[in-house]
Amino acid sequence: MQVALIGVSGYSGTVLYRLLKQHPAVDQINLYGHVDQAATPLATVVPAYQKETAMVRPFVAAKVMAANDVAFFATSAGVTQTLALPLLKAGFPVIDLSGDFRLQDPASYTRWYHRPAAEAAALTKASYGLAEFNHHLTSYVANPGCYATATLLGLAPVVQNHLIDPTSIVVDAKSGLSGAGKKLAATSQFTTVNDNLQLYKVNQHQHIPEIMQQLQAWWSAIPALEFTTTLIPVTRGIMSSIYVKVAQPTTTAALIAQYQQTYQTSPFVQVLPAGELPTLKTVVGSNNCALGINYNPVTKTILIVSVIDNLMKGAAGQAIQNFNQLMNLPQTTGLPTLPTFP
Amino acid sequence: MQVALIGVSGYSGTVLYRLLKQHPAVDQINLYGHVDQAATPLATVVPAYQKETAMVRPFVAAKVMAANDVAFFATSAGVTQTLALPLLKAGFPVIDLSGDFRLQDPASYTRWYHRPAAEAAALTKASYGLAEFNHHLTSYVANPGCYATATLLGLAPVVQNHLIDPTSIVVDAKSGLSGAGKKLAATSQFTTVNDNLQLYKVNQHQHIPEIMQQLQAWWSAIPALEFTTTLIPVTRGIMSSIYVKVAQPTTTAALIAQYQQTYQTSPFVQVLPAGELPTLKTVVGSNNCALGINYNPVTKTILIVSVIDNLMKGAAGQAIQNFNQLMNLPQTTGLPTLPTFP
Amino acid sequence: MQVALIGVSGYSGTVLYRLLKQHPAVDQINLYGHVDQAATPLATVVPAYQKETAMVRPFVAAKVMAANDVAFFATSAGVTQTLALPLLKAGFPVIDLSGDFRLQDPASYTRWYHRPAAEAAALTKASYGLAEFNHHLTSYVANPGCYATATLLGLAPVVQNHLIDPTSIVVDAKSGLSGAGKKLAATSQFTTVNDNLQLYKVNQHQHIPEIMQQLQAWWSAIPALEFTTTLIPVTRGIMSSIYVKVAQPTTTAALIAQYQQTYQTSPFVQVLPAGELPTLKTVVGSNNCALGINYNPVTKTILIVSVIDNLMKGAAGQAIQNFNQLMNLPQTTGLPTLPTFP
Amino acid sequence: MQVALIGVSGYSGTVLYRLLKQHPAVDQINLYGHVDQAATPLATVVPAYQKETAMVRPFVAAKVMAANDVAFFATSAGVTQTLALPLLKAGFPVIDLSGDFRLQDPASYTRWYHRPAAEAAALTKASYGLAEFNHHLTSYVANPGCYATATLLGLAPVVQNHLIDPTSIVVDAKSGLSGAGKKLAATSQFTTVNDNLQLYKVNQHQHIPEIMQQLQAWWSAIPALEFTTTLIPVTRGIMSSIYVKVAQPTTTAALIAQYQQTYQTSPFVQVLPAGELPTLKTVVGSNNCALGINYNPVTKTILIVSVIDNLMKGAAGQAIQNFNQLMNLPQTTGLPTLPTFP
Repeated sequence: MQVALIGVSGYSGTVLYRLLKQHPAVDQINLYGHVDQAATPLATVVPAYQKETAMVRPFVAAKVMAANDVAFFATSAGVTQTLALPLLKAGFPVIDLSGDFRLQDPASYTRWYHRPAAEAAALTKASYGLAEFNHHLTSYVANPGCYATATLLGLAPVVQNHLIDPTSIVVDAKSGLSGAGKKLAATSQFTTVNDNLQLYKVNQHQHIPEIMQQLQAWWSAIPALEFTTTLIPVTRGIMSSIYVKVAQPTTTAALIAQYQQTYQTSPFVQVLPAGELPTLKTVVGSNNCALGINYNPVTKTILIVSVIDNLMKGAAGQAIQNFNQLMNLPQTTGLPTLPTFP
Repeated sequence: MQVALIGVSGYSGTVLYRLLKQHPAVDQINLYGHVDQAATPLATVVPAYQKETAMVRPFVAAKVMAANDVAFFATSAGVTQTLALPLLKAGFPVIDLSGDFRLQDPASYTRWYHRPAAEAAALTKASYGLAEFNHHLTSYVANPGCYATATLLGLAPVVQNHLIDPTSIVVDAKSGLSGAGKKLAATSQFTTVNDNLQLYKVNQHQHIPEIMQQLQAWWSAIPALEFTTTLIPVTRGIMSSIYVKVAQPTTTAALIAQYQQTYQTSPFVQVLPAGELPTLKTVVGSNNCALGINYNPVTKTILIVSVIDNLMKGAAGQAIQNFNQLMNLPQTTGLPTLPTFP
Repeated sequence: MQVALIGVSGYSGTVLYRLLKQHPAVDQINLYGHVDQAATPLATVVPAYQKETAMVRPFVAAKVMAANDVAFFATSAGVTQTLALPLLKAGFPVIDLSGDFRLQDPASYTRWYHRPAAEAAALTKASYGLAEFNHHLTSYVANPGCYATATLLGLAPVVQNHLIDPTSIVVDAKSGLSGAGKKLAATSQFTTVNDNLQLYKVNQHQHIPEIMQQLQAWWSAIPALEFTTTLIPVTRGIMSSIYVKVAQPTTTAALIAQYQQTYQTSPFVQVLPAGELPTLKTVVGSNNCALGINYNPVTKTILIVSVIDNLMKGAAGQAIQNFNQLMNLPQTTGLPTLPTFP
Repeated sequence: MQVALIGVSGYSGTVLYRLLKQHPAVDQINLYGHVDQAATPLATVVPAYQKETAMVRPFVAAKVMAANDVAFFATSAGVTQTLALPLLKAGFPVIDLSGDFRLQDPASYTRWYHRPAAEAAALTKASYGLAEFNHHLTSYVANPGCYATATLLGLAPVVQNHLIDPTSIVVDAKSGLSGAGKKLAATSQFTTVNDNLQLYKVNQHQHIPEIMQQLQAWWSAIPALEFTTTLIPVTRGIMSSIYVKVAQPTTTAALIAQYQQTYQTSPFVQVLPAGELPTLKTVVGSNNCALGINYNPVTKTILIVSVIDNLMKGAAGQAIQNFNQLMNLPQTTGLPTLPTFP
């Protein structure tokens, strides 16, 4: 297959290129940048890929469709909706890593992303590609956000089965700095981040509405959730520590049994045995999501710990997983299931 | 004054020595180790203090009382109760950094510390030295634990004033590795900690009972709290992210006003303005506790973020603060109020 | 092919397992541990590999040879010489990641490793597998040490071509903590390593003699080298900063041309253009070695900066590269040539 | 005393403010910023100092001299020469942390700083304040650079006593990121720095000429030195690993004896015993410089390892030390001699 990758310079695009290079069904990767960008060597755009000889060429929708079988957009929200619209309208296969087509409601997009949404008719054509739960994709796949992936995989079993008080969800999420992207900022400088913790966008993060949209699709009784995000001094990895009150007293063992049932056919989800909780290193470098469960009978609270590599399962890895599903390949094709420990 | 420091080799003792050296009311620091330990140079016990010429001498209770005006115990829980008992019985001034005399209930101690408690009569003689709230100390001060200090200072205003649903407290605490002490462990190795997050002692941490004891002293309606601890890849610093449901709708501004009132005479507590939340670097190197408040009207949840330097306000710094109060010195004597930024 | 992996629990063995799993010529990996070790699940030995179902079985030389086509030893020096000797004597294909068969001179081994060497006759049968320079391997390949690989690849062009003062070599090498292995040590604790630099084994590191052996094979005039090692707060990566005085004045451009010529057929060696020096992130996660050259005409000194991932090109990756050469596969089979940036 | 601090917003100025606050001879700190800057709260300029109520006022030379007994300039090179010139001409006491008056030769300044130098007559009035060696300061003290301090203290005993081959000096210096200042740069982003090493300004660093100027003042036979700088993933700390060939064979013990003699009256210099080499944590948080010596008789090379806290002994701490000497106070007044371990 010939695949287009638009936006290789961001961290997600850079990691996606590496995965596509190792993918057995990909014969050729064609790189595209901004519409008005001159052809530029990949090695200039991504200095870490100094030995690569590929060129990044200007994006022209018709040419991209003519030369490729599928297109991955790793461009940022706002940019993607303009570039990708002709492909969406043409029914051309697209995996979109941005947030532009994840929300069905344009008003919600405008509120959380602080800019106009794509046209409503286009939004309805996109599939929300939470890969463990959506196996019937349309040609345009909106790849979920990193926080959303970790949080939704952690909550799915208890929400789908109505095991919790729907008003009680608290998510204390922690993320490494690669999630903040390459933009220069005082909050991303080493001297600020090292030996530090920083909360940001408390209850304001743009992944909140896609989490709510999916939770409510599973159980309409969920009214809202408390969602905080803390930057931690690591490069890769997200941990969502999720606290929910139970509807009825339960046990850790019963909950783990439920989680195992929900994910019994999911090759990338690891449900840990009772007494174990995942670390970031359980998953970083792989496309896995690891889940640990702890029920506290005194407070009637379940702690669910969900970890992913934000650039793999939270971005480029899940994009490949969706590509595999769209192309009727085995989900695990070309994707690592072992972390890069240590 | 002549002060005794028993247990200089642990991180708390090492930091305490540095603070005592700078303290204007301290004329001489006399160091003591184990009962059967030969006299050893401090520079051997703490290689970072290579230029110091002080000696660490064997601990003999009578000699310690004869030669000093006050004694700081930075020995570990279990050891302290034996060594310090003669001083407690004699009414000799003691600041005890261990957990041995924090809990009034011997059964609770045994359950959480997995060993026998000190005799019940002795326990009742100790004051729990949460320095912002206990200004009338007995001669034996049980210096609070690091997690307990951060969490209690964060919760005091809303608990004392009954502003919350008492069943709703969730504490997601994060700590640097110095909190785990110097003991060699796979979980403390650099290759394990770096680029990682690790939860440990979920709902099992030995600081939970002292938090409950104090919360219930403030408001007996508090039944329990959900309390998790996560090791983060930093050396110093604790952040307690506290989530509580409100009893009545409120605002961030009203809550901040309450916090400012509670802490208006507390020189080490910083209540941040609305819209700001503290980072670890706001406090590390100082004896400060910084508090940030965010009320979410959608979920009716207050997020309280409380940060301290676990070895300062969470251990050696608060010990000096208690010493100052015990000796009728100004609270801030010899204590830094500015962090060591960057 | 059926491959034996002896010693999966150390970092090199763990990384090697992951590489073997992705290798297209490997049908089955058979794991072996100590001679007297009961069969144990891999998931117990390497908790990061929790989803793997493979078993680690006791090592019996005859069974290993009967069931496999090749054996990788990732056991430690001292252990390997005993286990591997029957395979060496039988001419069975072995890739040995330990230092036990790298030195031809038993006395040198004893001096630097502080234990008896393997028998001299056995030592002569092993090939020193510096993969870029040794393409004619015997059946027993002694895979080079991590510091040796970085240093030798950095020095080869100037030593082989006699471009330097042979008495002037100074190597200031820096290594991440995974190079120190999993053994618990105060020097490997997070609180010691974080925010710190530590020199160790100055002029005493056991990789020095294999560097000297190879340098003298290239140019017998090299009498010795100054070699220091500094632990840096990173998990993976080695940088050798090499300083040599030139024999005749030269230019950076001329030197780079020489390096490009030496490595023109080496798929894993990147010679950077003038003005660029490699970082660890240029290579970590790949099997590459990146080289940067800077000539200072004022001091007549060449700075050569050589970086590798110590667990890939410095251990498991070069082991696969040697395996590929031994089996007449393309050198790059199953090996990543792109780093895991970021 | 009333002291002026011009330029509190950079890291050196921020640390200097904290030291001045603890200094027993300082009654009041008056803060000044740019000439045309409106009065601004310190808490705005340095958010880490949120509880401070001091104001930063616009700089006017006459007012600064009228209101203060001494002025510290922590402004950047280029800015300082303009602001400080009136004070220098008036003979007003100044401690200048910038590089503007360190070099006697204007041409050298222009070459290394890439901008015009201060007038030559002014340059000759400044004292180079390497505090261990210059006790007779003029009223204008040019405080040395961080790399220069570490390197010169390491080299002084062997250079002053002509113990080395003067053409053989190689300095492999490593620095934490606070040395790079607060300016936003891709090379200072956490994702770039973490788990990485980056060389920069190889043989181009602007501290090289002040090192050469001082070395040649000690021994005119020194022609040049090889000097490289590597950014390491730590916030504070510099290590200079210095390699020199000896003039005559010697021993580690003899060298250490020489170092002890040179520094016998220096309260901040620690010469470690044979077999020990300093780590960054030996000094960070203190004004100390720790020196370790290792002689290799095989290569006839001395390794000298010199470590300092770049913001203390390398900037604000040495500024206080020079202030103390200028004001005839004991050198150690107001300066910590113990590191902030851990």
